[in-house]
Amino acid sequence: MSKIQVSIAGGSGYTGGELLRLLLFHPHVEICQVTSERLDGKPVHKAHPNLRKQTDLKFCSLSELKECDLLFLCLPHGKAMQQINEFKKKAERIIDLSADFRLNDTALYEKYYGKKHVIPELLNDFVYGIPELHREEMRSAKYISSAGCNATTTILGLYPLYKHKVIYADQTVVEVKVGSSEGGNAFNASSHHPERAGCVRSFMPAGHRHVAEMLQELNFGEPVKIHFSATSIDMIRGVLATSHVFLKNKMEDKDIWKIYRTEYGNEPFIRIVKERDGIYRYPEPKLLMASNYCDVGFEIDPHSNRLIVISAIDNLMKGAAGQALQAFNIMSGFDEKTGLEFPGLHPV
Amino acid sequence: MSKIQVSIAGGSGYTGGELLRLLLFHPHVEICQVTSERLDGKPVHKAHPNLRKQTDLKFCSLSELKECDLLFLCLPHGKAMQQINEFKKKAERIIDLSADFRLNDTALYEKYYGKKHVIPELLNDFVYGIPELHREEMRSAKYISSAGCNATTTILGLYPLYKHKVIYADQTVVEVKVGSSEGGNAFNASSHHPERAGCVRSFMPAGHRHVAEMLQELNFGEPVKIHFSATSIDMIRGVLATSHVFLKNKMEDKDIWKIYRTEYGNEPFIRIVKERDGIYRYPEPKLLMASNYCDVGFEIDPHSNRLIVISAIDNLMKGAAGQALQAFNIMSGFDEKTGLEFPGLHPV
Amino acid sequence: MSKIQVSIAGGSGYTGGELLRLLLFHPHVEICQVTSERLDGKPVHKAHPNLRKQTDLKFCSLSELKECDLLFLCLPHGKAMQQINEFKKKAERIIDLSADFRLNDTALYEKYYGKKHVIPELLNDFVYGIPELHREEMRSAKYISSAGCNATTTILGLYPLYKHKVIYADQTVVEVKVGSSEGGNAFNASSHHPERAGCVRSFMPAGHRHVAEMLQELNFGEPVKIHFSATSIDMIRGVLATSHVFLKNKMEDKDIWKIYRTEYGNEPFIRIVKERDGIYRYPEPKLLMASNYCDVGFEIDPHSNRLIVISAIDNLMKGAAGQALQAFNIMSGFDEKTGLEFPGLHPV
Amino acid sequence: MSKIQVSIAGGSGYTGGELLRLLLFHPHVEICQVTSERLDGKPVHKAHPNLRKQTDLKFCSLSELKECDLLFLCLPHGKAMQQINEFKKKAERIIDLSADFRLNDTALYEKYYGKKHVIPELLNDFVYGIPELHREEMRSAKYISSAGCNATTTILGLYPLYKHKVIYADQTVVEVKVGSSEGGNAFNASSHHPERAGCVRSFMPAGHRHVAEMLQELNFGEPVKIHFSATSIDMIRGVLATSHVFLKNKMEDKDIWKIYRTEYGNEPFIRIVKERDGIYRYPEPKLLMASNYCDVGFEIDPHSNRLIVISAIDNLMKGAAGQALQAFNIMSGFDEKTGLEFPGLHPV
Repeated sequence: MSKIQVSIAGGSGYTGGELLRLLLFHPHVEICQVTSERLDGKPVHKAHPNLRKQTDLKFCSLSELKECDLLFLCLPHGKAMQQINEFKKKAERIIDLSADFRLNDTALYEKYYGKKHVIPELLNDFVYGIPELHREEMRSAKYISSAGCNATTTILGLYPLYKHKVIYADQTVVEVKVGSSEGGNAFNASSHHPERAGCVRSFMPAGHRHVAEMLQELNFGEPVKIHFSATSIDMIRGVLATSHVFLKNKMEDKDIWKIYRTEYGNEPFIRIVKERDGIYRYPEPKLLMASNYCDVGFEIDPHSNRLIVISAIDNLMKGAAGQALQAFNIMSGFDEKTGLEFPGLHPV
Repeated sequence: MSKIQVSIAGGSGYTGGELLRLLLFHPHVEICQVTSERLDGKPVHKAHPNLRKQTDLKFCSLSELKECDLLFLCLPHGKAMQQINEFKKKAERIIDLSADFRLNDTALYEKYYGKKHVIPELLNDFVYGIPELHREEMRSAKYISSAGCNATTTILGLYPLYKHKVIYADQTVVEVKVGSSEGGNAFNASSHHPERAGCVRSFMPAGHRHVAEMLQELNFGEPVKIHFSATSIDMIRGVLATSHVFLKNKMEDKDIWKIYRTEYGNEPFIRIVKERDGIYRYPEPKLLMASNYCDVGFEIDPHSNRLIVISAIDNLMKGAAGQALQAFNIMSGFDEKTGLEFPGLHPV
Repeated sequence: MSKIQVSIAGGSGYTGGELLRLLLFHPHVEICQVTSERLDGKPVHKAHPNLRKQTDLKFCSLSELKECDLLFLCLPHGKAMQQINEFKKKAERIIDLSADFRLNDTALYEKYYGKKHVIPELLNDFVYGIPELHREEMRSAKYISSAGCNATTTILGLYPLYKHKVIYADQTVVEVKVGSSEGGNAFNASSHHPERAGCVRSFMPAGHRHVAEMLQELNFGEPVKIHFSATSIDMIRGVLATSHVFLKNKMEDKDIWKIYRTEYGNEPFIRIVKERDGIYRYPEPKLLMASNYCDVGFEIDPHSNRLIVISAIDNLMKGAAGQALQAFNIMSGFDEKTGLEFPGLHPV
Repeated sequence: MSKIQVSIAGGSGYTGGELLRLLLFHPHVEICQVTSERLDGKPVHKAHPNLRKQTDLKFCSLSELKECDLLFLCLPHGKAMQQINEFKKKAERIIDLSADFRLNDTALYEKYYGKKHVIPELLNDFVYGIPELHREEMRSAKYISSAGCNATTTILGLYPLYKHKVIYADQTVVEVKVGSSEGGNAFNASSHHPERAGCVRSFMPAGHRHVAEMLQELNFGEPVKIHFSATSIDMIRGVLATSHVFLKNKMEDKDIWKIYRTEYGNEPFIRIVKERDGIYRYPEPKLLMASNYCDVGFEIDPHSNRLIVISAIDNLMKGAAGQALQAFNIMSGFDEKTGLEFPGLHPV
């Protein structure tokens, strides 16, 4: 089989680095170019020291980008939409890992991003990049917009419950605990180790932009509200979402299991994790490091109609590069797990 | 002024150690005895290495306990109630740091502890140990039951809002992020460093016993529900509670400020932390290490009627030994801050 | 190609778990049995939660062990030598990951282990398990004893210098910084998270048993002394060895480079890491997580004849399971990198 | 007693913040001014959030500095020597916490700092700021230069051995493990949390400037060499020095104990920590957080003439602000422990 020629626009950040690592080991891919203005001409391991001795690739400038079969965009938010028409000339297929094309509703974009979209007419050309929700559309898609990490974690935890309409759609409270890599590789006063280490920081108690994605994807006809907060903890990779939802009718564990099994029973990258004993009874992000899994667990509150849903991912994998590769596999007709076999570590 | 003679029953654990440290530097206290069966006869620094060169005190057995002015009980939960009548013979005043006498309602105890109380007739003799709520009762109290750490954090964050009845009393969702010292010094498979470090562990998504204390203390005539979850993170000391409450009517920041100022404006150990910029805009437990402060902050969700309340403490200080000493100062007629002046560190 | 039938004796510990993970993804291996007395009959993911959904394997008892092509021993130190004759009946080839057969000198064993070896006549039947030093012997070996993690890190850093006799053989000072997984999965008071987290603990300032392996492997005719200390830090995986050696004659960077290139230029799992700028100028264990690399760097002290050698590994990979698999590949005639391609992560 | 009027030049950094915290609680001190150009006019808690509600002090500009009894200089290295003559006009007594006046030998300064000293004629006017070595000179000193944190840790560990001449003066190898607060509050790519957390980074394998202080202070007539390396670990506060020294003659534990007791038996801030069992058998920085102690321990290598010395401090306390305050107490005739009573925490 001839290999697919891919390039990465914006390859010096954390997401670009992870994508590059995955693509280097993908059996059906040839990486043509990786761009970085800051490191133009330097070997890629200057930005990604884990790739020493893995490749001879060097960064080039975006202006040197050539045509290829498929282009991954790992540019900062706001950059992809500015140049999207040029990128479309370079490659027939595009997977954008930024937030620029995740929403298909202009009004929703404006409400959560506080500004007008540069090129709203393209919003509907992109398939929202969670394969578990949009696998069929992906098979024939030309453009995919990879989902936000917090959105992915939350949506995958809640989607079956919303779809089956067993919870009140507007009472959901979610808190995500996130690591420092979510903020990217740009350093600032808040990311300085003596300030950031040991923190439990309510960096976004309200108003997180990823909520817009949740509202879009969890809409099954009932008005959806997601009361969302994000807290930074002393961790580099990983997201854990604790979602508190309220059941319309009394349900038992087996009823909830059934719903999750119905939706996720055949999913290659979702595991329902709920054990009676042991240390790891519910999902934990550290076990998912470098894997593409989203683990989902739950617990019914014995004193009320609350159901607690716990979901976890590696934000740079299922929350970014891994999920983008999963989408790539689907749209390319490969086995969905190709290049994503790493199962995670223990202890870690 | 002659010093108050105090003893500590059960002084080899983390709470006992912190109490011992604080009492050693209290100007009006003389420590008579500290008990430990396991370390009977050994110097106290065998359990508390930070106290090397601070004292010549040795542990003695509980059976050797003599009369004193005031007795602190730092025994494991369930032990204090078994021997409370003997302890009452040893000291006229008792401060119990266990969970045994926190609830004054037998039914509530049975619901959350799953068993009958050994000596329910004494439940009403103990004042619940949060000074900000029960200061006046403490002045003349003989028996005080120090509050749970998660309960203290949550109650101090929510008390003004419940008292002023501006939120729906039964819609509150709370998630606490806790450190490993909450579990005490008994090691187990789950506290083994390779398993516990780096974790984000939903150790108690529902059913936490401290909820009973919240229900008791936040009751202002409306039916209270607290949807509570607890998550362990990679931290030793500290609790951060993120509470999601829902406003009955639209309110602005200044309205919320006013309520908190009304209730806490003169409180020596509560600070309202809410800043427009900087790294530490909301409360963070790491800044409170070794201090007795409870920091409280809040944010109104611009997209809904949700108010997010963020409260933080050092679980071994305001959540245990510090709060017990604060109560001791009040019942002894001392300045409430005596021995509790340490302001916390930065960076840390 | 028909697959090699392997079994693991003692598969519930950290080393056994990592070996199991690697073998599950090895294209030429079929895992027959994995033993654990404690978890007999349970699925392997009970001990290794990262292996959920990866395999249906269950633990069996050691007494049920059947014949196989090759047997990996991941038993606690001291157990392999007790039963080695029985294990030899089960499999023609054995790779032992314990310390039992690492030394080929009985006197050295007794000096460092403080007791007599149970079956000294077998010591010379085992090839010491660092492929970079013993590759040729491994090709025809029946028995391999995998090297200690601290020994591997130190030996790989120093081997070229000792071999080329450019340093005083008896003046070397080494300090390793190690993570908590080195201690295995048995919990104790010292591994309790509140005590172990944040520690910088001189757990073995002198007398570490791995020194015996260094003395054996660095012996090129000059009397060798390794002044070795081990310090635990707040890390789960990883070893960093800082070795201070003293040059017989003045040398420059290029001279040292040449020596390392001569010895390691073709090694698939060794990288010389020494950069002029950037964050990662010398080896760091965190970049090696889940990889089988040993990174080695160095710096010449401008004020003296000291050369500082810095070497790093993942203790569960190149320091245990990864190195054992590398040896397995060599003795089986496979490409040495098979199943060991994972390059490590960044950021992490 | 009338209070001493002090000011702090350069009070917005980590060292300035700790000094400010200590001085606020010192019974014989009144803080007049704290300068910061960046935060001129802002309350001090903007830089030091732990000081919320502790003081109404605001930062002022250095140009507004008034006369006072004693001036603390917490300016960046190189700034104090540029303006020292102006500072001398402001205050009769000065304690400089920078590196500018630590060395009394111009040649040594030039060798380690790579440039000429701006005002070498003043070098001998400053007493080197380790009280355990220079207490008598401090009593009448006008100018004190506070010692470097790594230098303090190493010197206090080794001083008795050098003074008693029981070790080879030129064979000492030292490795310090340091936290991120040593680098101050200026953020950069290397201090970015995803890069700095989890690191074991040989940031200065050779050539550390603090070595010059060691050479100066450990000189007892024999040529001194200190082979020094510094490694960053995932810690905010704390230094642990592991020093490998070589005994001229065979010695036993009691001989070493005797030397340390002779030198340090009456020292209020030094503890010899060496226990047969328990978790904390040797010094550990985490137990010293916020305390002014230097803990020193040792172990004799049974296989050689090596003695391993382990010493630990909190770099911002005994390594900076605490030691400066200790010197202040001595030169002011106060009890040396005033304001420095905090014993450290456990668990932490």
